[in-house]
Amino acid sequence: MFKELLDNLKKVTPLVHNITNYVTVNDVANILLAVGASPIMADDITDAKQITAICTGLNINIGTLNAQTTKAMISTGIESNKLNHPTILDPVGVGANEYRTNFVKELLAAVKFDVIRGNISEIKAIANNTNTTRGVDANEADKVTTDNLDSIIAFAKKLSEDLNSVIAITGAIDIVCDSKKAFIIKNGRKEMSKITGTGCQLSALITAFVSANQDKKLEATAAAVAMMGLAGEIGFSHLQKYEGNSTYRNRIIDAINNMTGDELENGAKYEIK
Amino acid sequence: MFKELLDNLKKVTPLVHNITNYVTVNDVANILLAVGASPIMADDITDAKQITAICTGLNINIGTLNAQTTKAMISTGIESNKLNHPTILDPVGVGANEYRTNFVKELLAAVKFDVIRGNISEIKAIANNTNTTRGVDANEADKVTTDNLDSIIAFAKKLSEDLNSVIAITGAIDIVCDSKKAFIIKNGRKEMSKITGTGCQLSALITAFVSANQDKKLEATAAAVAMMGLAGEIGFSHLQKYEGNSTYRNRIIDAINNMTGDELENGAKYEIK
Amino acid sequence: MFKELLDNLKKVTPLVHNITNYVTVNDVANILLAVGASPIMADDITDAKQITAICTGLNINIGTLNAQTTKAMISTGIESNKLNHPTILDPVGVGANEYRTNFVKELLAAVKFDVIRGNISEIKAIANNTNTTRGVDANEADKVTTDNLDSIIAFAKKLSEDLNSVIAITGAIDIVCDSKKAFIIKNGRKEMSKITGTGCQLSALITAFVSANQDKKLEATAAAVAMMGLAGEIGFSHLQKYEGNSTYRNRIIDAINNMTGDELENGAKYEIK
Repeated sequence: MFKELLDNLKKVTPLVHNITNYVTVNDVANILLAVGASPIMADDITDAKQITAICTGLNINIGTLNAQTTKAMISTGIESNKLNHPTILDPVGVGANEYRTNFVKELLAAVKFDVIRGNISEIKAIANNTNTTRGVDANEADKVTTDNLDSIIAFAKKLSEDLNSVIAITGAIDIVCDSKKAFIIKNGRKEMSKITGTGCQLSALITAFVSANQDKKLEATAAAVAMMGLAGEIGFSHLQKYEGNSTYRNRIIDAINNMTGDELENGAKYEIK
Repeated sequence: MFKELLDNLKKVTPLVHNITNYVTVNDVANILLAVGASPIMADDITDAKQITAICTGLNINIGTLNAQTTKAMISTGIESNKLNHPTILDPVGVGANEYRTNFVKELLAAVKFDVIRGNISEIKAIANNTNTTRGVDANEADKVTTDNLDSIIAFAKKLSEDLNSVIAITGAIDIVCDSKKAFIIKNGRKEMSKITGTGCQLSALITAFVSANQDKKLEATAAAVAMMGLAGEIGFSHLQKYEGNSTYRNRIIDAINNMTGDELENGAKYEIK
Repeated sequence: MFKELLDNLKKVTPLVHNITNYVTVNDVANILLAVGASPIMADDITDAKQITAICTGLNINIGTLNAQTTKAMISTGIESNKLNHPTILDPVGVGANEYRTNFVKELLAAVKFDVIRGNISEIKAIANNTNTTRGVDANEADKVTTDNLDSIIAFAKKLSEDLNSVIAITGAIDIVCDSKKAFIIKNGRKEMSKITGTGCQLSALITAFVSANQDKKLEATAAAVAMMGLAGEIGFSHLQKYEGNSTYRNRIIDAINNMTGDELENGAKYEIK
């Protein structure tokens, strides 16, 4: 099934609008090109609203935000909803401070998101409005393990129902679910957490997959998550002993660039619960 | 001839001021260092005007723009004109929406550009004020082919005359012309379009070449375009089978870093019309 | 001694807040992850003040600045001082124009910095309020050589006393000193100056080292400087003939990622004056 979703993406070449942070934006653009989509970035309130109209999907990432871009996120998100474009949220660092937590609350009240992707601390912060996120990384205490997996799946399905969004919780074990069905995905490597922006890149990838496969949002999100993890495995296999996180970053995007639908289909490791 | 232009650039080490987008800015800085120039970025209206005074040329790129940076672009462009510094425009995404199209109109009314570089859709949008650009990539219908080449050369020469600017249209076939003479350049590879920012990098490279060779603007622009394409060919030749667009990006900048004047002279593929 | 400082950093995993430029920010994030720290970027005035409270240190870099971010730098710097967090300044391009020189004066009046790191032109500009900096690179006339080394050490010790900050002057020869003791560090390669942001990366690395070793600020800064230079040597040794500054950038971060405390201890080349 993932094969068809990727093949379709490559056929459609979705144009993805990103309102995203300036830390990882270049990698976000290159991974979209790698997979066969086209990126465009616009975060001025006037520019962004008009750009979203010519795109096929919108990826909002709050990694760096300010008084201007927050306004653009809200108004462009509303426009994207009106146009029935897939609208994705990456709530980077929500829960780390009041500013981000409050903004995400405001954003969720104004904009309907088709998919929300974050680490477990960020997704819990959205559910609980707690402030326990440690910066932009997941808090150790929140970690998804085989022991707490079932309860986290139940939590994510409930959140999906409440927000009417596909929920993607990524980490050592990835969970992608709607209110009824969860993909538990086990691709990826722990070294990916040593690269800035693998999460941001994945959210953009999800936007491309969902834009091209709008009638299969859950499966498209799961395919993107599996593809990113699989690219992490493939990229790692080509690293020399003296190479580290910086070259690894490139190898992952390279692997996305070279991966076929068949390779994704055969390499994806997941179960459904 | 290209050899002398590159050798001169390396001798002069021009200091290039870039008001550019945050997506590809790091690659813009590294390609300027690679070729032997020095980059500086400043986009605050006060900072930018003062920085441009100590530089040898100004590269304005509208890939991401907002209410503040548009003002800085105009006032710094005017200052650059006053100082007789080479002033280059990369009108990213002009024609994609009203905001960018209107801003470029305003910018062209206030600032005289020595060179304007874009893809064919962007250059047509400047000429026609149409809104047919597909995001930041050229529209398929606008593509330069051997069939329409002569008519596009005539169009570009006319635009060069109207704006008193060297016009560089880059794509599978590159056209660099003033009102009388056109370089048709055939270096490069199609895989370069899978890397974000090769156009932005090229505009910065043009600024460095023209800054160091102010009495030969047309030839300096053509040399930069040929060098970028040739670097794309060299960089590609060193790619492993498992490498893709992310590593390719690095290999192109690496090739710029290592290219000598003789290699550029011998590798450039062009004719004059 | 450097071994213990690096081992301690890896144990503590400091969370480093960066208010930094958009040119080199991605490399800054990746080098922090490479060394074992965690990066977070926030430059909105409200967001930044709250983020700094959950971090262990603050790195302020003025490579690109504007009317909004300058205010955030001052208020967040004051907050960081209140919290007794190590606070580091990278005064990129100070001395190049009035805007940056005046802002740094204002910043130094409001915020106490534990460490200030720059090239010799920038550090001289801070001391003298002169405007002789050539863009973001050191002016040739200011270069540290074996001939003027002793007088520059004396100058740096005096500045350290005046500002009550560790002073790090980096270039072909690196000087790290407080008012009484100077480390003269000879690691590194000249090719590092062809990569944008090695200075920015180093300032972030210093913040991580000092955050984890607050009772040894001078030694922690020297360790970071030696580590960056040593990574430059190691990274260069793995370059192929056809590779240049772009791949070199990755190899340096890779080398930071792989370096152990013992390797740093054995590879550091310095004397104390």
